[in-house]
Amino acid sequence: MNSAIQKDVELVEKALESSVPVRGGMQEEVWNAMRYSLLDGGKRLRPVLALEFCKLSGGTEEEVLPFACAIEMVHSYSLIHDDLPCMDNAAYRRGRPSNHKVYREALALLAGDGLLSLAFETMLQEDAVAAVGPAKAAEAAGILARASGACGMVGGQAIDIRTEGKRLTLEELEQMDAGKTGALILASAEIGCVIGGADCALREAARKYAAAIGLAFQIQDDVLDATGDEVAVGKTLRNDSVNEKCTYVTLMGLERAVSESARLTEEAVAALRPYGEAAEVLIELAESLTHRKQ
Amino acid sequence: MNSAIQKDVELVEKALESSVPVRGGMQEEVWNAMRYSLLDGGKRLRPVLALEFCKLSGGTEEEVLPFACAIEMVHSYSLIHDDLPCMDNAAYRRGRPSNHKVYREALALLAGDGLLSLAFETMLQEDAVAAVGPAKAAEAAGILARASGACGMVGGQAIDIRTEGKRLTLEELEQMDAGKTGALILASAEIGCVIGGADCALREAARKYAAAIGLAFQIQDDVLDATGDEVAVGKTLRNDSVNEKCTYVTLMGLERAVSESARLTEEAVAALRPYGEAAEVLIELAESLTHRKQ
Repeated sequence: MNSAIQKDVELVEKALESSVPVRGGMQEEVWNAMRYSLLDGGKRLRPVLALEFCKLSGGTEEEVLPFACAIEMVHSYSLIHDDLPCMDNAAYRRGRPSNHKVYREALALLAGDGLLSLAFETMLQEDAVAAVGPAKAAEAAGILARASGACGMVGGQAIDIRTEGKRLTLEELEQMDAGKTGALILASAEIGCVIGGADCALREAARKYAAAIGLAFQIQDDVLDATGDEVAVGKTLRNDSVNEKCTYVTLMGLERAVSESARLTEEAVAALRPYGEAAEVLIELAESLTHRKQ
Repeated sequence: MNSAIQKDVELVEKALESSVPVRGGMQEEVWNAMRYSLLDGGKRLRPVLALEFCKLSGGTEEEVLPFACAIEMVHSYSLIHDDLPCMDNAAYRRGRPSNHKVYREALALLAGDGLLSLAFETMLQEDAVAAVGPAKAAEAAGILARASGACGMVGGQAIDIRTEGKRLTLEELEQMDAGKTGALILASAEIGCVIGGADCALREAARKYAAAIGLAFQIQDDVLDATGDEVAVGKTLRNDSVNEKCTYVTLMGLERAVSESARLTEEAVAALRPYGEAAEVLIELAESLTHRKQ
């Protein structure tokens, strides 16, 4: 991994760790359940995007950090709820038992709810607001709220359960993924731009970049499911074909899926090319996502 | 019902109705599920508190309305999730089948998630922020986030599932209810004060008032469960004794519970007495809560 990204990830890990401290008292268990999923060593792609776009826009890491953490909290909450028995009923997540397998269903539900609220608590706490000013804080929190809601992630998940077992068109699959994963990736880039004070041109470039890598990321997920190595990927593969799921690979064929992912990555890179060296980390990040093996 | 409160409720109903429009498309079902619970004719106590405290502080109904609606969205989401099979497994809510009975579990989960996000979308939308300024909007949204989270409602619910079937002390029961119901009632009053621009004295009075009526409301709930008329209350009663639940009535005895509820109401009224006629609606509201039959 690029060392600048590694530094971002370390910064985010430290901030996330202190956002869900170990607590005693009657609410101990729900905090533990929140910790379990939030501190599970994910890739932290979304907070890294927020950090890098903030820096590219002229802002500092310190200013954007609470917002970057909030984005990861929303991501983490959505994974807990997606894994619940009434949704995907997933027993494992990133090689560990899923939240409800460890903490049982009721507490996993609450841990997800708690993380979604904590995201907004984190962005709207006095210090975070004071550091960037209330206008930027309110705008960034509004972007995250819309990305999380029924026009974003919740909407994408609703399409998913509605179309379960049905054959989707490519357009429908793209609409579903635009909600399920695209919305939060787009919001991460936008929030970075808002906090950093980006101009319109950079913000538009960030949107293009994020939309392209969001879709490329999802296509690559399906490619990995079809071709990847289970040990390297760290989860059960070939799920999609076992469940007869509509994926980019089943709809496009493997070859076109691979080339489409490469094309989107090139599109993302092109959007940031005008920013030259300053955008190098983001350009490398886009390229590493297409070549990832997990 | 007091006619001023009735006017508030009508205003809130209209705004809530337009916040969850009927939509076509692939996300239609999740919006319908959100509508089903949000527009179920609840008492709208929390938004009324926000409206009245905003007006008492010198603000307008229009300014506080998006925030009042957001509070009700949080209340509605929490009821949907509380009713789920893994939590209270409640088949009915306000005399109608609960959300998951109508829309099935996965969609009810998403409808709750969607309403929690929608609360923040509503408070942080451009118009709402512009009307009150970003500083007030960020402060109000922060108050709602903390009230919803693991130190508020989620925390109270976590205590509830942790202590299920155990004998609680009165102090533990109060701590649980302070999270489950008290936090949001307190937040409603505070948000009204923030948006209206209340001074410190009024804000402190609002906190005292809301803490007292929040607890009185909960005690009254238990009193109604023990003594009320099922038809008037509109739900199955004597649940608490059947389930051997710890309640204020089982812990204090019926007589002391009734007198404690009256004492708290008097405390709430006393907090607002310095504001005289301007606070009359809130004073009547506190009194009507103790005398309610449903």
